[in-house]
Amino acid sequence: MELFYSKDIEGGICRLDQDESGHCVRVLRHRSGDEISVIDGCGTLYRCRITSDSHKGVEAVVLESTEDWGAHPYRLHLAVCPTKNNDRYEWFAEKACEIGFDVLSPVIGEHSERRVLKTVRVEKILVSAAKQSLKAAVPTVNEPVSVKEFIKSHSNEDGTLKLIAYCFEDENVPRRSIKEVLSGYEGKDIIVMIGPEGDFSAAEAEMALEAGFIPVHLGASRLRTETAALTAASAAYFRYM
Amino acid sequence: MELFYSKDIEGGICRLDQDESGHCVRVLRHRSGDEISVIDGCGTLYRCRITSDSHKGVEAVVLESTEDWGAHPYRLHLAVCPTKNNDRYEWFAEKACEIGFDVLSPVIGEHSERRVLKTVRVEKILVSAAKQSLKAAVPTVNEPVSVKEFIKSHSNEDGTLKLIAYCFEDENVPRRSIKEVLSGYEGKDIIVMIGPEGDFSAAEAEMALEAGFIPVHLGASRLRTETAALTAASAAYFRYM
Repeated sequence: MELFYSKDIEGGICRLDQDESGHCVRVLRHRSGDEISVIDGCGTLYRCRITSDSHKGVEAVVLESTEDWGAHPYRLHLAVCPTKNNDRYEWFAEKACEIGFDVLSPVIGEHSERRVLKTVRVEKILVSAAKQSLKAAVPTVNEPVSVKEFIKSHSNEDGTLKLIAYCFEDENVPRRSIKEVLSGYEGKDIIVMIGPEGDFSAAEAEMALEAGFIPVHLGASRLRTETAALTAASAAYFRYM
Repeated sequence: MELFYSKDIEGGICRLDQDESGHCVRVLRHRSGDEISVIDGCGTLYRCRITSDSHKGVEAVVLESTEDWGAHPYRLHLAVCPTKNNDRYEWFAEKACEIGFDVLSPVIGEHSERRVLKTVRVEKILVSAAKQSLKAAVPTVNEPVSVKEFIKSHSNEDGTLKLIAYCFEDENVPRRSIKEVLSGYEGKDIIVMIGPEGDFSAAEAEMALEAGFIPVHLGASRLRTETAALTAASAAYFRYM
């Protein structure tokens, strides 16, 4: 099933941007009268009929719309420190999108080696991953903030299950497995923070606990940052399976 | 923690091959008398003291050995069809190793586009992934066989939970989720078959069912081959967590 992506669907009219129009008309050779399927990135699938087949700007009329198309039964916000190697972060984003998550917050920790992230690239990857895995919702990517800023801005979220995956190797903070904590949670709103290669700083971890984040571990295996982030996404996926 | 890999540990003597020796002596500048940690790829960690620090062939005496170091509490055999793009297969192998699995069988399906796989490359990736994730066991990689040969050779394995992830879109074969099937299994030996981009053929699926493979789904999300394989590994990981 071929999906197109448009942010410009209004009053029963859907317009594709130049990239999508080129792909639609030049590559797939769609013409006026053809039916196409378009996602709005916000969860709705639109069945449309092309009325103008310009390769610069396809226009189509909406025939039918389906909300929450390909949606998952939870709301997962992943706050993940950028990895030293960008490819690994982009790989994680693609895979987590296939499995199902909603918001990505790149967070910069005190121990982060990489302190910048091009969100535009990640957004593009998420759009194609959403199309490829037949989801009408594309995860939101926030601008990078520091770990401490992120914790502050989420300190007062009652009802949301807030988790931090941190080793606490030197401290005696008891951690439960993410599986156990998720299975005891009746709601659907989850935040998981995943630290950088050098882990969170003790100060960041302490601040997170004070802000109501629950310390969890991801099992006995020692996982890279991007694998840990994807494993957290899988944990939520299986919790609601 | 720096780990070395050696297949040549005998009679209390550990020898590193040329690559590992060069890394040990030239890069990490280890010298005679230094202690190093070596995995044998079969599950045992050896603490050794270097007795000869040649960059062509390091020799060391074994001081202590620890069996099942970094082991996981299940035995997972993944039979996964090669992906069109080799990188995706190698990525899956690395990540699955971090999470924990034991045997990889590349299987060629009737719908497989890619019909060859260089196992040597995958083996190298698995060795470094095992070192990186602190596991003394490196998953075994079998030579590629056809899906039907694989099914035949595993048709008589009582006690092993044999699963096939197949869509059965056109047929009316009832599938349970892999989570549900795993949670109902008391043993520890699991085989999961993951098909190619074009899925298994109807004949392959039928043959698998006759051979005692249980049809499972991996949840509502539509996953690429490599993501499906990793998600199956995560399902086992969480089952025994």
